Amino acid sequence: MSKKRVAIIGAGPSGTAQLRAFQSAAEKGAEIPEIVCFEKQDDWGGLWNYTWRTGLDEYGEPVHCSMYRYLWSNGPKEGLEFADYTFEEHFGKQIASYPPREVLRDYILGRVEKAGVRDWVRFRHPVRWVTYKEDTGTFHVTAEDLKAQKVYTEEFDHVICASGHFSTPNVPHFEGLNGFNGRVLHAHDFRDALEFKDKDILIIGTSYSAEDIGSQCWKYGCKSVTVSFRTAPMGFKWPDNWEEVPLLTKVEGNTCTFKDGSQKRVDAIILCTGYLHHFPFMDEPLKLRTANRLATADLYKGVVWNANPKLFYLGMQDQWFTFNMFDAQAWWVRDAILGRIEIPSDRAVLDGDVERRVAEEDASDDPIGYQGDYVRELIAETDYPSFDVDGACAAFYEWKKHKKENIMGFRNNSYRSVMTGSMAPKHHTPWVDALDDSMEAYLRA
Amino acid sequence: MSKKRVAIIGAGPSGTAQLRAFQSAAEKGAEIPEIVCFEKQDDWGGLWNYTWRTGLDEYGEPVHCSMYRYLWSNGPKEGLEFADYTFEEHFGKQIASYPPREVLRDYILGRVEKAGVRDWVRFRHPVRWVTYKEDTGTFHVTAEDLKAQKVYTEEFDHVICASGHFSTPNVPHFEGLNGFNGRVLHAHDFRDALEFKDKDILIIGTSYSAEDIGSQCWKYGCKSVTVSFRTAPMGFKWPDNWEEVPLLTKVEGNTCTFKDGSQKRVDAIILCTGYLHHFPFMDEPLKLRTANRLATADLYKGVVWNANPKLFYLGMQDQWFTFNMFDAQAWWVRDAILGRIEIPSDRAVLDGDVERRVAEEDASDDPIGYQGDYVRELIAETDYPSFDVDGACAAFYEWKKHKKENIMGFRNNSYRSVMTGSMAPKHHTPWVDALDDSMEAYLRA
Repeated sequence: MSKKRVAIIGAGPSGTAQLRAFQSAAEKGAEIPEIVCFEKQDDWGGLWNYTWRTGLDEYGEPVHCSMYRYLWSNGPKEGLEFADYTFEEHFGKQIASYPPREVLRDYILGRVEKAGVRDWVRFRHPVRWVTYKEDTGTFHVTAEDLKAQKVYTEEFDHVICASGHFSTPNVPHFEGLNGFNGRVLHAHDFRDALEFKDKDILIIGTSYSAEDIGSQCWKYGCKSVTVSFRTAPMGFKWPDNWEEVPLLTKVEGNTCTFKDGSQKRVDAIILCTGYLHHFPFMDEPLKLRTANRLATADLYKGVVWNANPKLFYLGMQDQWFTFNMFDAQAWWVRDAILGRIEIPSDRAVLDGDVERRVAEEDASDDPIGYQGDYVRELIAETDYPSFDVDGACAAFYEWKKHKKENIMGFRNNSYRSVMTGSMAPKHHTPWVDALDDSMEAYLRA
Repeated sequence: MSKKRVAIIGAGPSGTAQLRAFQSAAEKGAEIPEIVCFEKQDDWGGLWNYTWRTGLDEYGEPVHCSMYRYLWSNGPKEGLEFADYTFEEHFGKQIASYPPREVLRDYILGRVEKAGVRDWVRFRHPVRWVTYKEDTGTFHVTAEDLKAQKVYTEEFDHVICASGHFSTPNVPHFEGLNGFNGRVLHAHDFRDALEFKDKDILIIGTSYSAEDIGSQCWKYGCKSVTVSFRTAPMGFKWPDNWEEVPLLTKVEGNTCTFKDGSQKRVDAIILCTGYLHHFPFMDEPLKLRTANRLATADLYKGVVWNANPKLFYLGMQDQWFTFNMFDAQAWWVRDAILGRIEIPSDRAVLDGDVERRVAEEDASDDPIGYQGDYVRELIAETDYPSFDVDGACAAFYEWKKHKKENIMGFRNNSYRSVMTGSMAPKHHTPWVDALDDSMEAYLRA
């Protein structure tokens, strides 16, 4: 009998966690399936790669990148550390708690480079179409080799979709945008805060993108920040040239009118309005349609596609935990594929699991703890190194407190690693003064 | 025997020409196939619809629009007039020769509204995947109904791909763009020249987008225009604050360095570097891969897919003629499907036709005349109303002369309709002074 074949879609944080999970089993002597990872970009790292490109890339494919220059982690690294590959192992020392993009990218890729699994990835091979064939019980995955200009189809026993859900922008319309005389962009297309130096900017939204892009533009010298909220302001202690206003109702020329009748003339409008779960390459019976929440629709244990348990989705939850949650999921999916974990054959059991998770999320007033419990649940069922999930949650709670105290200064704090027990050093420069976001500058003692 | 089914992909100028071609035959008593037109946007008109959106739209689909505000036709309307529906019929009078976008859109849609074929179009139904089934001799077209959130597959005897080739940008890289401190955009994402008022802009490229977007930014008050060419400057008589420089070699901060060592500090870089033929929804045996030229690769008569003559592509040529050329093609494809025109069954004949066209284009020093001959050739084989193609060519030759004389004033000229013989009136306002591009302003006497 020939070896099982597994397709992984995407080589970002989730996809590479899956590669590492299989490699880790192989290293311990297990026989693993043939793994083929299809990646649209020309490197692995997913969202953690930066490019100046927006919209469509040099092959006409949607640009995956939602990153911008000068981005620093907006949560403490102590909440996302890998249990099997610590920051200290990677950098040879403990580092400060809010690393810039380049530093985090280096860290997550360091683990898979060490694992030696790059050969499993087919770069510049976007997946065009995935269907399930009832007669053979296999998936047909059609991909395009962009460099060779060739579309081809291969057969797989399992598909693991790890293509992410922070790269397809959710872009609402507001009356009058067709006539706005400045730039309108979604956070997905934001690249360099210096473009907005000396400008009056309007930000729509109140979630992480709004908070961080506004803070960046402020840090790099924009004239003013106006943030428009739908339901409630973020309510942090903002600088003087920052105000929060109700929802945008109308744009005329460069003048924006808000729900309370107030007006503001702005140069640019940045829509920080979130992202869509978007899987245009999935046939209807395989396509996840879910809101961005902690308990996703239709996924048993948050990863198994209930309608066809040979298909898995990774990382489709809204996230407090990130890299180590993807690990928890990847190890679990690996073991399900290896037959070490049994997925119930009764569909009602799978659906019941989802219903229970949804109800528990709805009833919970502690999303961090809720997601911590989820991570702990998955880890307990595999050989992923157990870690102090409560300790990671504690870092998140502290972080929220630090943001409340000083939204422009919370990144100056340090936290203790739950993996190694060591305390992170204080960074050498306060975030508001640290204009150089290079790895070299960050790691300098 | 059940009726033949024909799928048309796209309801822009080419797709609507195809709808009109079939409706015209039905009107004259012919029995026509069932027509299903799949359209990604929520209205017909293709590129002639304007939206403020860039990148991805509200459903996560690539934005089709490459239009910008204040765009006026860059060629005389006398070269693109429909032979079966004149400007005079649509507007009730003759109008000036270089209409703004809204006016041209109204004109092309007026014809299909009159034809009553809107019901044939499924709006917001992007095509996901097209394959050909050898066993049934039919195409499987998979589309997504975005509003109903449903992917479905239907069978067709013919597919006509009319999805255009000016909506997927060709975006080259230049050294240092990852560190540029202003906005970098492709012409595809250019929307409002007022965003660049008082700015120094760099344009890369020398074709229509470069010429027109530069002129617009100049007209609406940018500080300076620098155009970087690869081989040769456009060489028009530009205004004083406009210069042409060799190819961009490097970007550092906001400073651009060119091949001759000269430098310029700019606020924005606009890549006017053309578009790709991009058909991600086509299976390998059906996918057109061609350069943007007058004699496309692999299309007999410029429309028949040689490898499978049940598949057609419309409007895939580089274009001097536009709307009336799409008509010539649509009528021809219609007649091929209706069995009025026979496509040779010998593949060598089809390939020979393409080779001959390529050789003739390569040998020709008169692209306008070459494309005029092509339009005439197709028209002669159908009942599309014959018209004075030489007269239309003459309008193009005059237009080129007028541009050479005055690049900021060529739109003040008028030409004679080859359909009705009447002379276009002179427009009431010189183009440089006409800041209002609305249909109302344009049609005012």
